[in-house]
Amino acid sequence: MPMAKKKPSKKAVRRSTTKKVAKKAAKKAAKKTTKKKVIKRTASAHKKTAKKKSVRKVARKATTKASKKSITKRAAPKKRIIAGKMVYAFGKKNEADRSMKALVGGKGANLADMTSIGLPVPPGFTITTDTCAAYYKNNKKLPKGLMAEVAKHLISLEKQRGKKFGDETDPLLVSVRSGAAVSMPGMMDTILNLGLNDKSVKGLATKTGNERFAYDAYRRLINMFGDVVMGVDHHHFEAAFDTIKAKYNVNDDTDVPAEGLKELCDAYKAVYAKHVGAKFPQSPVKQLELAINAVFRSWNADKAVSYRRIEGMTGLNGTAVNVQTMVFGNMGDDCGTGVAFTRNPSTGENKFYGEFLINAQGEDVVAGIRTPLHVDEMPKWNNAIFKQLIGIKKILEDHYGDMQDIEFTIEQGELFMLQTRTGKRTGLAAVNIACDMVREKRITEKEALLRIPAGDLVQLLLPYFDPQAKEANKALATGLPASPGASVGHPAFTATEAVERADKGEKVILVRKETSPEDVDGMHSAVGILTSTGGMTSHAAVVARGWGKCCVAGASAVHINECEGTFTVNGQTFGRGDMISIDGSTGEVFAGSMPTITPDGISGNFAKIMKWADKYRTMGVRTNADSPADAQRAREFGAQGIGLTRTEHMFFEGDRITAMREMILAETTPDREIALGKLLPFQREDFVGIFTAMHGLPVTIRLLDPPLHEFLPHEPDAIQRVATNQGVSVDVVRKQVALLHESNPMMGHRGCRLAITYPEILSMQVRAIVEAVIECSNNKIKAMPEIMIPLVGTHQELSILRKQAQGVIDTVKKEQGFKKKLNIKIGTMIEIPRAALTANEIAEHADFFSFGTNDLTQLAFGYSRDDINTFLPDYLARDILPEDPFQSLDQTGVGQLVEMGFTKGRQTKPDLKIGICGEHGGDPKSVHYCHKVGLDYVSCSPFRVPIARLAAAQAAIMDE
Amino acid sequence: MPMAKKKPSKKAVRRSTTKKVAKKAAKKAAKKTTKKKVIKRTASAHKKTAKKKSVRKVARKATTKASKKSITKRAAPKKRIIAGKMVYAFGKKNEADRSMKALVGGKGANLADMTSIGLPVPPGFTITTDTCAAYYKNNKKLPKGLMAEVAKHLISLEKQRGKKFGDETDPLLVSVRSGAAVSMPGMMDTILNLGLNDKSVKGLATKTGNERFAYDAYRRLINMFGDVVMGVDHHHFEAAFDTIKAKYNVNDDTDVPAEGLKELCDAYKAVYAKHVGAKFPQSPVKQLELAINAVFRSWNADKAVSYRRIEGMTGLNGTAVNVQTMVFGNMGDDCGTGVAFTRNPSTGENKFYGEFLINAQGEDVVAGIRTPLHVDEMPKWNNAIFKQLIGIKKILEDHYGDMQDIEFTIEQGELFMLQTRTGKRTGLAAVNIACDMVREKRITEKEALLRIPAGDLVQLLLPYFDPQAKEANKALATGLPASPGASVGHPAFTATEAVERADKGEKVILVRKETSPEDVDGMHSAVGILTSTGGMTSHAAVVARGWGKCCVAGASAVHINECEGTFTVNGQTFGRGDMISIDGSTGEVFAGSMPTITPDGISGNFAKIMKWADKYRTMGVRTNADSPADAQRAREFGAQGIGLTRTEHMFFEGDRITAMREMILAETTPDREIALGKLLPFQREDFVGIFTAMHGLPVTIRLLDPPLHEFLPHEPDAIQRVATNQGVSVDVVRKQVALLHESNPMMGHRGCRLAITYPEILSMQVRAIVEAVIECSNNKIKAMPEIMIPLVGTHQELSILRKQAQGVIDTVKKEQGFKKKLNIKIGTMIEIPRAALTANEIAEHADFFSFGTNDLTQLAFGYSRDDINTFLPDYLARDILPEDPFQSLDQTGVGQLVEMGFTKGRQTKPDLKIGICGEHGGDPKSVHYCHKVGLDYVSCSPFRVPIARLAAAQAAIMDE
Repeated sequence: MPMAKKKPSKKAVRRSTTKKVAKKAAKKAAKKTTKKKVIKRTASAHKKTAKKKSVRKVARKATTKASKKSITKRAAPKKRIIAGKMVYAFGKKNEADRSMKALVGGKGANLADMTSIGLPVPPGFTITTDTCAAYYKNNKKLPKGLMAEVAKHLISLEKQRGKKFGDETDPLLVSVRSGAAVSMPGMMDTILNLGLNDKSVKGLATKTGNERFAYDAYRRLINMFGDVVMGVDHHHFEAAFDTIKAKYNVNDDTDVPAEGLKELCDAYKAVYAKHVGAKFPQSPVKQLELAINAVFRSWNADKAVSYRRIEGMTGLNGTAVNVQTMVFGNMGDDCGTGVAFTRNPSTGENKFYGEFLINAQGEDVVAGIRTPLHVDEMPKWNNAIFKQLIGIKKILEDHYGDMQDIEFTIEQGELFMLQTRTGKRTGLAAVNIACDMVREKRITEKEALLRIPAGDLVQLLLPYFDPQAKEANKALATGLPASPGASVGHPAFTATEAVERADKGEKVILVRKETSPEDVDGMHSAVGILTSTGGMTSHAAVVARGWGKCCVAGASAVHINECEGTFTVNGQTFGRGDMISIDGSTGEVFAGSMPTITPDGISGNFAKIMKWADKYRTMGVRTNADSPADAQRAREFGAQGIGLTRTEHMFFEGDRITAMREMILAETTPDREIALGKLLPFQREDFVGIFTAMHGLPVTIRLLDPPLHEFLPHEPDAIQRVATNQGVSVDVVRKQVALLHESNPMMGHRGCRLAITYPEILSMQVRAIVEAVIECSNNKIKAMPEIMIPLVGTHQELSILRKQAQGVIDTVKKEQGFKKKLNIKIGTMIEIPRAALTANEIAEHADFFSFGTNDLTQLAFGYSRDDINTFLPDYLARDILPEDPFQSLDQTGVGQLVEMGFTKGRQTKPDLKIGICGEHGGDPKSVHYCHKVGLDYVSCSPFRVPIARLAAAQAAIMDE
Repeated sequence: MPMAKKKPSKKAVRRSTTKKVAKKAAKKAAKKTTKKKVIKRTASAHKKTAKKKSVRKVARKATTKASKKSITKRAAPKKRIIAGKMVYAFGKKNEADRSMKALVGGKGANLADMTSIGLPVPPGFTITTDTCAAYYKNNKKLPKGLMAEVAKHLISLEKQRGKKFGDETDPLLVSVRSGAAVSMPGMMDTILNLGLNDKSVKGLATKTGNERFAYDAYRRLINMFGDVVMGVDHHHFEAAFDTIKAKYNVNDDTDVPAEGLKELCDAYKAVYAKHVGAKFPQSPVKQLELAINAVFRSWNADKAVSYRRIEGMTGLNGTAVNVQTMVFGNMGDDCGTGVAFTRNPSTGENKFYGEFLINAQGEDVVAGIRTPLHVDEMPKWNNAIFKQLIGIKKILEDHYGDMQDIEFTIEQGELFMLQTRTGKRTGLAAVNIACDMVREKRITEKEALLRIPAGDLVQLLLPYFDPQAKEANKALATGLPASPGASVGHPAFTATEAVERADKGEKVILVRKETSPEDVDGMHSAVGILTSTGGMTSHAAVVARGWGKCCVAGASAVHINECEGTFTVNGQTFGRGDMISIDGSTGEVFAGSMPTITPDGISGNFAKIMKWADKYRTMGVRTNADSPADAQRAREFGAQGIGLTRTEHMFFEGDRITAMREMILAETTPDREIALGKLLPFQREDFVGIFTAMHGLPVTIRLLDPPLHEFLPHEPDAIQRVATNQGVSVDVVRKQVALLHESNPMMGHRGCRLAITYPEILSMQVRAIVEAVIECSNNKIKAMPEIMIPLVGTHQELSILRKQAQGVIDTVKKEQGFKKKLNIKIGTMIEIPRAALTANEIAEHADFFSFGTNDLTQLAFGYSRDDINTFLPDYLARDILPEDPFQSLDQTGVGQLVEMGFTKGRQTKPDLKIGICGEHGGDPKSVHYCHKVGLDYVSCSPFRVPIARLAAAQAAIMDE
């Protein structure tokens, strides 16, 4: 069913949902959705009511409808908001719906929503966010009439559950939770078992025949209530528990017998009385009143306030309070608790997938003492419940139109749904589920595209470790997940060594403190790269990502002894003979060899998703590639051209570096020109290769960018070697190294500044490009080069160099008697803040702009990306930065420069082609931003091309 | 006579003039106006006409008027612009005036103006700029009727001079010059002697009785005409001249006899014919027509076009052509040529001052073969001419209201004025002349202030070398004039050595490759500083300027051998026993000891100027000072507070550095706190000293800014010493040095980033400030500290650190039982581009902003100021940068960030105090800019405070 005809209002609703999904996806980047995760979730324990029959009926009804419609048409009818009404029920009477999130909060809306589609949700009620606002207006006192309204709803709950609040024989117990319209850390979490007191706990014990259970519930209430509501430090309760455990000579909480828990309740009450200065309240209504007060208070807790400030949240009037009847999964063997996904979250297979524990509550699962059972085993235990769950799977998918992650509890043979939410999934599962759901006509192609966190696609291209093998191994050390993938090999400690050993067929992992352009050969030969310093945008990380090669960077626990050819981690030493495995997706380093799994590449559902993405996106996607092989691969991944070819990477191989060094050591322009003459054929050959691979597609070539010292060695031995090679004295080399030394090379003599002082370098490079174009043209290969001049900060630089380049183009054309039109564009990178500020002037001389957001970020923040790790962790931990600005573009600050550069550039030339070639070009959030700004294309490393394609499509769809 | 009643239009005229003066003043920075300069000027040679009598009459008349009026009332009556008129005469008939600059160009207006006040100017005419525009419209052909109009004016000239153009016995000769409304390099310069041909040259020879003179004039014409008009390369003529010189066996042009020059004319004609493909035109009118064509053509020469583009000149329609009759100073001993100033340009003394040569032309003066005579000697030669010149001095000063720089020629006993313009002068002369002229009621106080190039005031405060001694010495090497002044001493090669030898009473100049904060002690002990690397904003330069200590930086010819204690310049070696003299105002380094002169400081006329400046300026002026002594001095120079105290400079002396290093080497927070505890009393004491010196004035204290590695040594020996001092192993120190190493320390772990990771450092510093304030208060000293948090890039940083600082303030206040209000402001530097971009957010947490334009410039351009010298010279030479952006604020680019920071800051807080404390605070042009933006104050090094006061006054006056 096509989406195009939807009304804007609904679309807007959906868009905001999708945005959140995208946001979540970005946040979880480093986290994993593995099997382990499933059992680490808190599942709360609850108690019975809703009637099976009606549930089934509703479920059936919903199913019939659902098969005809896409989820978007199934928004529940709007409930009425009644002025002055402070409490909304869910359960038999369902007074709220999901459109009322602002009033009843996210959790309240969700509970009402689940109830409305007939799921067996323990009944309860929600006190509105308006009431919270009224509380603050009322000088932090509950507004008049609230507790009376609450009392009415309590009576309704008592009727529905057939129990009485505070009853001495069969008490109704409730949970109390906060819940604003947007989920927010820092607010009060949960109080369970509210309603118990010295008398009702006995009733509960008798009624359930489980004294231990009853007193355990009571001691939890006293603890939580004391801690969360009254502010008694948790460790006071811990101390009391320790005393009891010592008395009964047990280690685990669970081993304390019922008698001990009874004593513990008394001890807890004493702790409470001592620190609160009053007895633990025996009146359940008083308990509830105090808990409601605490929830409201927590809305203005420091952490919640600062979270709202950081996230820029305004317009919220407070938190709601959810009061829900309790159900318990630990009252006997006809009880249980579990979590499940409606489809397989790892593969996407359309099969109910989950785990459960018999006679347990959520906390037991967390404690990890017992191994849960797979849901496939549930029929053997209770087939009716299993069937009910399968029905619920369908209801949920019909209603939400997506795979759900649910929590449930079975109390004495009766199923209760405690939670449902969109399930997290692997990249593979996301792709498969989205495609399946389009096939099932549950969602449209566009919806399918919006469903897949673009960043997760990388998982579908790169090898990964067998999850079971990984689970069995403990990581030696963890660094930064600098370039995803998995690789296994023997450590090599220098680039030369890596090349030599790799040439002999050995699989090596290059292990270095940090890498520099000199190491590029060795990095290329290695199957993976491990560094002990450097960040996500260090040289190693950037180069590795460009190649799609696995890299772990900045693993600071790894101490390298290059001379001895060993490294040490926590006292364990590894040498050239040892095997190591590194996971570039997680940053983990393992001892030994672990089996890897290699995905299929772009085929099947993945290919289908890519086809859809290309259909809807409006922004181009290019790649950053420095070699014909990379270019070819990127083209296979769908790149529509090259957005950045770094010519300097070409200068490191074999004879080239010799000629390059000869050029650098030259003392006169003619000598430099001779050396450049030797480099020319290499450059030409490189360009012919790349043009051939990109036949018919544009190729942006950045002229020499790094400072020249990067091409000279710095260690005495290497200097000696270079001197010998170059036939000059060691002193000459040493002097040149010293001359080229800079305090801050990032801001030194590099980029177009080199071309200004050594025009002959630019001339050689442009000549190589033109000669290559002509050679290609003669071989019927369509080369479309775009010459990009880096590090421009003033329009004069570009004007001078453009003129020079144009002169070379004309000369070569004339020399070769080439008659056809040579359409070679000349443009610049916008990577210096001043270039963005004066983009109107610079555009006069540019055919295109490409934002170099790596350097732009460095300069806008004044952060050297090589040094940022000294303070970045603190900055992230203290929320000074929401995320690493080298990973995801800082839209607030750096973004202003991007927008300025864009607007001013287009002001001068309305048809100026503008792209981005920084690392951000492969970050989904940044791709969305680039679309919003209006860029023509993004360019990213080959392995991120599919990500960018999808992200661009998502941005276009969200922008419709 | 007060200026306030002038009409706006006139004011605007004056303002633009003053602006130009200010611009020129800035440009000449490095140049000097010395005696030498005077004789190095081209004085053109001309020929007689105007009548002595009438000149005197007019002169007398003008004088009488002038004594009653200020210059601004004396604007010449407007001449009529006549539609279609292409040529305007000056001379007997004077058809233009200085209001017609747009039409007749600057030079044409000047010639008309001089004529109109009765000066004896050789008559001529000007072809209008409109005619140039018509030429281009007419497909680069002279517009119809032009040559006819020219012919009419030629007839008038012939009548006035009693000679005929092209006459074979007594030819009228003319010069042809270009001249747009604004002076512009790249356009055609001058053609002299036009009108000569094979016949008239003979007439000229006969008439003057000087054959050599005639043929010399002719060969010059052929050469200039061939080169400038017809584009024949000058070297072809040179070659012909060489042949002749060889033939006559002479070395100098002037030794070639008349016969040889005759032959040379033939040879030149042959060169001309060969390269032009036509004979040298014998028709004087043809010569003139071709020359006019050439002038118009030159308007669109590449260099002129690019100059207009770079300077952003629009609205000009072309160049004018000035045709003027020639006069000659080299026709005999009753002839002469000279240049003079109407007052002494070195001291300002109101006495005619200049030099002349008998029987000579301008070029002879340039050749420097003959020594000119002082004008005082003129009466002995020709008293009438001398008296006439004295009369002209008065006419000129009355007319222009300023000291003039004139060129004159005496042809056969008759004086001709060739040029007058406002005379350049030293700072001292500028101050004295301005004050004298106010006393003479020629100008108002405001005009006086506008007259003085603010930057030149530094000459009135710092010692300088005796000009005569300087003239007698040749500089050994020239570096950058990093901090003005003159000093003489023995070289010292390390900071320690400098301190030790200075302590023994020796005068030492610290000679280092570059300096670092470790050298501060030695720099302080030395009388001057010389470095072989580093730029105008290198550490040495910045620190030296702060202290007003003489410094020459980046003298790359100086090769230092620190181990041997010597340095070598061009093979000459200097050791500890040798004396050297360095001139920080010019960058020169001299061998031996040269006598210095120390000015009087702020007194007399200088004090008067400062009083006037304070009366008119609206912007505050503070100083950058790190010690009580500096603060005291700055206060004497008129600083109204401290805008920047760099606390880190306090950490280098004696015991402090030990405690500082202990802090850095500490491995735990408690250990760090112990070391900080040792630093606390030092800091407190420093602050008490500064607060005392600045009693009642605000003191902005910047918290620790540099990266910690700057406090640790890097050489093995020094590391060993520190290890011993600190009682730790060498390895510990070495490890810490390695840990603190950064690739780009400028963008590394420094500024507020240190305070975020080591909050205890900030706490110690704030505590020291508060304790100092309380101590001062108890001693009745009013301390007004402003705590400045450096390197803020996000509002979160400032918010966190402000809260922390406020906490410390409250704690200390409580501890000490201090009851009075502590008004301590907390603000930040805006020096990170992102801070300017998000100033609205940052202002929320700031009581004030101070633009740190040094770092802001570094980051906006991506220029490391320590490394910029590798490309800056090329950038300046190729006009990529109009000037060093670290010297004068880049208003186009960096200025946008300043304006953004200002506007966004005030958006959030309309009363936010905003200043600037970068090096630019002492640069007049930047001060003007700061006034324009609206800053509350500028802050600069103590010795530049008077400059900033004057510049601020100028800005305010120009803004009225």
